[in-house]
Amino acid sequence: MKIIGEKINGTRKRVAQAIAERDAEFIKDLAKKQSDAGAAWLDVNAGTHPDKEPDDLTWLIENVQSVVDTPLSLDSANPKALKIAIKAANKTPMINSISGESERLTNILPIVAEHGCPVIALAMDEKKIPETSEKRFEVITKIIKETRALGIPDSNLYFDPLAMTISTNTNSAVIAFETMRRVRSEYPEAHLTIGLSNISFGLPARSFVNRYFLGMAVQAGLDSAILDPLDREMQAAILTTELILGRDKHCLNYIRASRKGLFDKPAE
Amino acid sequence: MKIIGEKINGTRKRVAQAIAERDAEFIKDLAKKQSDAGAAWLDVNAGTHPDKEPDDLTWLIENVQSVVDTPLSLDSANPKALKIAIKAANKTPMINSISGESERLTNILPIVAEHGCPVIALAMDEKKIPETSEKRFEVITKIIKETRALGIPDSNLYFDPLAMTISTNTNSAVIAFETMRRVRSEYPEAHLTIGLSNISFGLPARSFVNRYFLGMAVQAGLDSAILDPLDREMQAAILTTELILGRDKHCLNYIRASRKGLFDKPAE
Repeated sequence: MKIIGEKINGTRKRVAQAIAERDAEFIKDLAKKQSDAGAAWLDVNAGTHPDKEPDDLTWLIENVQSVVDTPLSLDSANPKALKIAIKAANKTPMINSISGESERLTNILPIVAEHGCPVIALAMDEKKIPETSEKRFEVITKIIKETRALGIPDSNLYFDPLAMTISTNTNSAVIAFETMRRVRSEYPEAHLTIGLSNISFGLPARSFVNRYFLGMAVQAGLDSAILDPLDREMQAAILTTELILGRDKHCLNYIRASRKGLFDKPAE
Repeated sequence: MKIIGEKINGTRKRVAQAIAERDAEFIKDLAKKQSDAGAAWLDVNAGTHPDKEPDDLTWLIENVQSVVDTPLSLDSANPKALKIAIKAANKTPMINSISGESERLTNILPIVAEHGCPVIALAMDEKKIPETSEKRFEVITKIIKETRALGIPDSNLYFDPLAMTISTNTNSAVIAFETMRRVRSEYPEAHLTIGLSNISFGLPARSFVNRYFLGMAVQAGLDSAILDPLDREMQAAILTTELILGRDKHCLNYIRASRKGLFDKPAE
């Protein structure tokens, strides 16, 4: 289970402020903490106007790379910003994201192919999110035809089946699970990822929903997720899930985390 | 998801004491609390020597039935005790348990058939627990041949695939999940149940393992479990799991439980 650290995101107020004020220490601190917590990639999202995005993204990348060598996930739909950001990246970055939308495919896929980037691909079309897992899988199939045509290996694809909130459709999680199982079975080389911000939107006790959803998604084939690697409850959920699925040899990671107090209730 | 309340069990010291001292109030209290917490059945286990078991079990049953009308699960391998206990029960009780062991099948199945009892059937043979899901499924198939021959409907069977501790075999949970999926697919009318006491044995932070295991087991087809219905963390796990699997209409149970404070951290 690989984690894409979500914290360096300019759509968050405090990060936007750090970008605007060029507060490098704040960004470096977020990078170090997420990397120490085991993030496999660090998402960087400037969240700014397309005119400023290339500069802001480059500034973020340089500061992150000055303290960690964790690969980046370049979170932008702007081909211009992406091209500049890729040049600034020391290691091949992940691209976050494409979708079945023709414009994104046309503009971003050639960049992905040229640089051999892993890429997150959302199971949605022209900004519409299909309601059924069948239709989401159709979008995924459309995307994979395009990526294969460009010689992008399936193993560089991270499909996000999209987890919408359960509060307005109680089948949202099941639709995501079904889409995941179908991808696992029909495109076994491809990866699965998910953003956890929506599934519990509008519900109370959101962290319970997010954590159990993640555990069940891993069972359905999820092998990466975009989340806050500093969230201790989420860390506990991931370690427990991997233990249960027989992926923690001699239970060492679980026991080690327990010794470090991960499963203890926080002192209040 | 139906719960078999596990608390009235004479192998627990405090319950053994209550049985020995004929402390009816203690037993009634356990019955009321578990029933109020939503248990679908109350397990009763006298935990005593076969000579005393019929009397002790009858005493337990009478006291439980004096305060609740929740059906019972008669937890005994003693045909004599079971026959007497069934007469004492107001509602058709569940029998806990048979297995692939010939003696149990010969002695207990006729009682199950005669009284139309639901029955828990362990996926083990002659006291040995098979190591693979294939072999556990073979035992289940052997049992189902016998029950069908006696006219017991599959819908009265609650197969327990057996969850052994992950600490000595990291594949234990996966073996249980595989067995569950196979039963779900080949005997769709049969139910699945599980005892949660073993899966986390020898590990730290056991409640994390138990709760996430339960969530993932429900995803694999589990529809009942033997557990402590008063365990708030387990209640939260069950409600969250059912919400995620689209079984909580309008999210009402989840929201109601949240309003009652189920997801709050306990005051310490």
